[in-house]
This record gives sequence, C-alpha cells and structure tokens, in this order.
Amino acid sequence: MNSQPFIAILTVSDSAAAGEAEDRSGPLLRDLVRTLWPEQEPVMGLVADERDRIASRLRQWADEQDVALILTSGGTGFTPRDVTPEATRDVIEKEAPGLAEAMRAAGLRVTPHAMLSRAVAGIRGRTLIINLSGSPKAVREQFEVLKPVLPHALEQLRAGKDGVRYARAGEHRRQA
Amino acid sequence: MNSQPFIAILTVSDSAAAGEAEDRSGPLLRDLVRTLWPEQEPVMGLVADERDRIASRLRQWADEQDVALILTSGGTGFTPRDVTPEATRDVIEKEAPGLAEAMRAAGLRVTPHAMLSRAVAGIRGRTLIINLSGSPKAVREQFEVLKPVLPHALEQLRAGKDGVRYARAGEHRRQA
Amino acid sequence: MNSQPFIAILTVSDSAAAGEAEDRSGPLLRDLVRTLWPEQEPVMGLVADERDRIASRLRQWADEQDVALILTSGGTGFTPRDVTPEATRDVIEKEAPGLAEAMRAAGLRVTPHAMLSRAVAGIRGRTLIINLSGSPKAVREQFEVLKPVLPHALEQLRAGKDGVRYARAGEHRRQA
Repeated sequence: MNSQPFIAILTVSDSAAAGEAEDRSGPLLRDLVRTLWPEQEPVMGLVADERDRIASRLRQWADEQDVALILTSGGTGFTPRDVTPEATRDVIEKEAPGLAEAMRAAGLRVTPHAMLSRAVAGIRGRTLIINLSGSPKAVREQFEVLKPVLPHALEQLRAGKDGVRYARAGEHRRQA
Repeated sequence: MNSQPFIAILTVSDSAAAGEAEDRSGPLLRDLVRTLWPEQEPVMGLVADERDRIASRLRQWADEQDVALILTSGGTGFTPRDVTPEATRDVIEKEAPGLAEAMRAAGLRVTPHAMLSRAVAGIRGRTLIINLSGSPKAVREQFEVLKPVLPHALEQLRAGKDGVRYARAGEHRRQA
Repeated sequence: MNSQPFIAILTVSDSAAAGEAEDRSGPLLRDLVRTLWPEQEPVMGLVADERDRIASRLRQWADEQDVALILTSGGTGFTPRDVTPEATRDVIEKEAPGLAEAMRAAGLRVTPHAMLSRAVAGIRGRTLIINLSGSPKAVREQFEVLKPVLPHALEQLRAGKDGVRYARAGEHRRQA
C-alpha cells in the first residue's frame, strides 16, 4: 500500500508568534516537504520560544494526532530564549543523533557558524521529531540533508502502521 | 607486559534469537577483532531486541566478568523494536560520543542512510561498550573506523589493570 | 558598545595540581584567547581530576562571577580519572553538541585518535563552557576550530548583558 506520512511543521519564534515578523520558514518547509510528497498538506503551527508550550505542542501532535514527522524551525541557537532542543529532549524517548550531526556537518561546509546549531532529533512513540534552524537559508540546506533518508526513516518507524511504503515524488513514473 | 584484552560480542536480533535467521554479524565481528588480536576468543552472546535483557547482559559482562570491550551489533535503527542505544545508555557511566560520530561520518561517505544509525558508545567501570549496526556490510565499515584507536582506548581504560600494553597483530615482527 | 567578554580558563590535571608537572595548556589557551581579544586577562584555575571540584569551580565562575566563557583543558580521555565531561554535564543546562562535534571532526583530519575525545560543550545561565583536550597540540588545533564562532556565540548568549558587540583583534583598524 502506498500512502502519505502525516506531517506537521512547527515554527518556534517569539516575533512571529507576536505577529511582529512574518514566518517564512514554516511555509518554506511545507514547500520543501512537497518536493518529496507532492500532495502533502502538513499541519502548521506557530509558538513562542517557551519550553513548555513547545513541548506540549509536540506531545499533542505525537500522542493525540499520531503525526509521523514533526519538523521544527527556530530556537536552536545560543540566546537565552532558544529552548527548542530542550523542549524536544523533554518529549523524545529515543535520540537519533545522526540526523543533527549530518545537518551540522553539511552546514560546516558552508559556514563555521553551523556548529552553533544545538538541534536535536529523536523519536516519541511512532513520531520522528527533527529540529531545524530558524533562517530560511539554513532550513533549505538542512532539509536537503534529510531528504534522501526521510522516506526510509518513516517507513521503519511506522512499520505496520500507515503501511510499509510511502510514495515519493516522481515515483509512479519511475515504476511504470 | 603484553596481554590480550578480554572481549565480548553481543548480537541483538529478534529473528536470530528466535532461530529464524542466521547471525552473520557476530561471527564477522569475531573475525574482525582477530585482525587486531589474532589469538582472541571473544565471548559471544545473542539476545532479542529487549531493552532489559540487553542491559542486563551488558552489566553482567562488565561487572561480573570484567570484560574490557563489548561490541554490540543490531538494534540501532528506527523501528519500534530498536532499543540497543537505550539499553546501552542505561548502563554506561561515561559517554564516548566521538566513536559513534566517527562511525556515522565515515558511513555518510558511503550512503546517506548512515545518519539513521542511533549507535551509542560509552564506558561502564573499566569496560568500553560500542554499538555497531546490524548489517554485515555496515559492521565491516564501522570496525575499520574503530580499529586504529581500539588498542589505545583500552590501554587508557585499563591502565593499571590488565597491564599497560596490548600486543597487536604483526607487532612482534615490527618490534623485532 | 564594544566590550570584552569575561573569560576563565580551567586546567584539569592531577599531576599539575600536585605540582608534579608544569601546566602548559592553561597559559597556551590564554595566549590563544588573546589572538581574538588582545587585552584579555582571563581568570586562571587549576584543579585535580575530581568531578566535584571541577563542577563546583564551573558553578562558582558561572554563578558568582558571571564569566561569559569557560575553556577547560584536560580530563576528556578514557582513563578512569578522566571526568571533565561528566563534571561539565553536571552543571550545564543546555548542550551545544556542535562545538564538540566540530572539534572532533577537525581532529580526525589529523589523527584518528581525535575520536577518543569525550569533550562536551554547553551553557549554564549566561556562561558558555567548552571542554578541550589536555595536550597543547590538540588545544591549539581545537581553539582554531572555535575561534571563528566564539564572538558571535558569546554575543548571542550575552544579548542584553555585556553589550551587543565584542571588539575583536584588528577590528578598530578595519572599522576605521
């Protein structure tokens, strides 16, 4: 059975949550997700940089809505308000450090500042949660790193749930 | 004094533990260990993907048998049954993140799927525990990464116990 | 306002603390810090490899003296006495794994033994704490990795405290 993973995108930003800045990373992530799965309509969320609010949104999406993949954007830096990794650690049951390492290693080929990302990735139940940076440029680069492995990661994670196989963009043609 | 480190190899696999699949990674790891220390007779173990059983085997080997190095194979992926890293974290007292990072970084030069390994490495007492993947191909690649540093790592870890220096393959000739 | 970050350097070494060996890494780190901020007079410390003593010094510098950056040297290896990473984890509230990953990845281009560094980096309040190795050669290489990102990291961390901007070496000329 070919199906679609259920995806949610969470922008973490004080200024966007207060309506003082436009959220550009959330819509960008939606576009990027559609390069893998063109018919995706991800659930979109926006919260301020508050550890409890971030964690409770992640829990709700994972536990009540059974989302397969949550991508967050923002809150991974060094300012005192940056707490997305801590909120993510609060909710994950298994860490997947290789995803964050690979995003940072790829980023280091562009700029040494990539080492300042404190992004975390991990699993809660059947939900994969991955932190991305806040800037659209970094989000685009980081998604490119994740893109080749997301389908397989979700198939492993959801084995026996959504169905074994997620259809990818362009695949019908390739299989025809 | 030249001596041999005491080594144990743990295959973590539901299917192999149930007798439904052959364990190929365990014997392969034994062969690979002998490329470093030709006279090694590692203790071999095989358990299902059960966090408590994995952790208790690791504890037993470390605490009761004073094993210097435990290499595990399997259970590091994204399926709900994959819990080897969690069992390893349950027992280690000190993390050695560089070993897992180096194995993943080397793997990324072969395939992006290497970032999906959730392997952990760390120390319990005088025992070094390192998770490797389940596939023989990955096990072979990962051991090659570890091979140049294992003797020094164990010498540091066992300082004052087994003796200061572990004899390596081919070394008698080199020293002669 | 251009200001200087308040920096502290902690050498962790049984032999140096006992007066049996000269501390070369601490003074070297002071020299290296001055390549970024020439007028720096870092607070210097020296403790034995004791988890509680290391942690209490880190806490004191962070909480009572409001130090912006603590660089430690030593105690990150595999001997039973190496506990600097554990003491650091005891006190940090947020991990910054990318700094340690980047130092190890750069070190691997010099020697595979770089993967044996168990260094940790993280944030306590408004203080960034980074573990470096004990050998002067490794300290020099690792500081080179950190150097391009330290000013921005501290500016983010201290936003609204010391002032927004830390003057760097050679900058007056460049801005003139």
